[in-house]
Amino acid sequence: MSTVTEARIEADPTVPVIRITRDFAGTPEQLFRAHTDPEIFVRWVGPDSTSSRIDHWDARSGGSFRYVATHGDDEHGFRGCFHEVRPDRIVQTFTWEGMPDGVALETLVFEDLGPGRTRLHASSLCDSFEARDGWLHSGMEVGVNEGYAKLDGLLRDEAV
Amino acid sequence: MSTVTEARIEADPTVPVIRITRDFAGTPEQLFRAHTDPEIFVRWVGPDSTSSRIDHWDARSGGSFRYVATHGDDEHGFRGCFHEVRPDRIVQTFTWEGMPDGVALETLVFEDLGPGRTRLHASSLCDSFEARDGWLHSGMEVGVNEGYAKLDGLLRDEAV
Repeated sequence: MSTVTEARIEADPTVPVIRITRDFAGTPEQLFRAHTDPEIFVRWVGPDSTSSRIDHWDARSGGSFRYVATHGDDEHGFRGCFHEVRPDRIVQTFTWEGMPDGVALETLVFEDLGPGRTRLHASSLCDSFEARDGWLHSGMEVGVNEGYAKLDGLLRDEAV
Repeated sequence: MSTVTEARIEADPTVPVIRITRDFAGTPEQLFRAHTDPEIFVRWVGPDSTSSRIDHWDARSGGSFRYVATHGDDEHGFRGCFHEVRPDRIVQTFTWEGMPDGVALETLVFEDLGPGRTRLHASSLCDSFEARDGWLHSGMEVGVNEGYAKLDGLLRDEAV
């Protein structure tokens, strides 16, 4: 099995889904923490040009979150609820408040690849192909790749 | 504009969505209460052959719910989180615990049709056409139609 060092970002041809696949030098437990511990999450999420702060965070089944990404004078809020939080799988909703009626259903799966390696499978289900393709053309790959590179660094530094 | 007295249940041809449209002799405020007040909700949801009880209910943005439908000796749990709850629109996740990894993203919109009349637009976005068609072929229309008929009765009795 080859290693996915750059995030693979794929548009499903039949359903309005974006699928992201990315390998990490960390355990599934570490990947789970990186996505549920708010202090770790804000250290890696998003592109290098932004910094994020937590407004609200309750990472358990039935909980919810809101965080704010800052880029110069721009602030962008992101919020959602956690449908299910379990060690191998997180299902949550996701809205960028700039499009407050747009909602994606996100699923994160942490696949154990053996000692200290994990493949992340992240999918975002949108309610239309237009909404999905809007995300794909928003420059999201910059935030995805730069964010995961920061997470690589935190794993390397044993900060997760 | 014609009145939709039977629920119209439609499968979108391009995205894995079920859309339900149904008119009620009630205000948008009453329809909102029917979907957010747990004591009212359990009086109408589901087919006539089942009764439902609330296990957990917190109908606000970022809250969650779980209810149990009983049919003879069978019990079926349903759960989800409320992504957004506002007077004209509810967005929530929905899982039948018999298929615990299946999740739908549901949107309810209460369209004001004028004095005392409301059109409900309910959509369920599934993560695959197979999952969507599984719901469509599950006999769901019985629960939808019998449930909404019970809600008609509660509106008639001014119990909402």
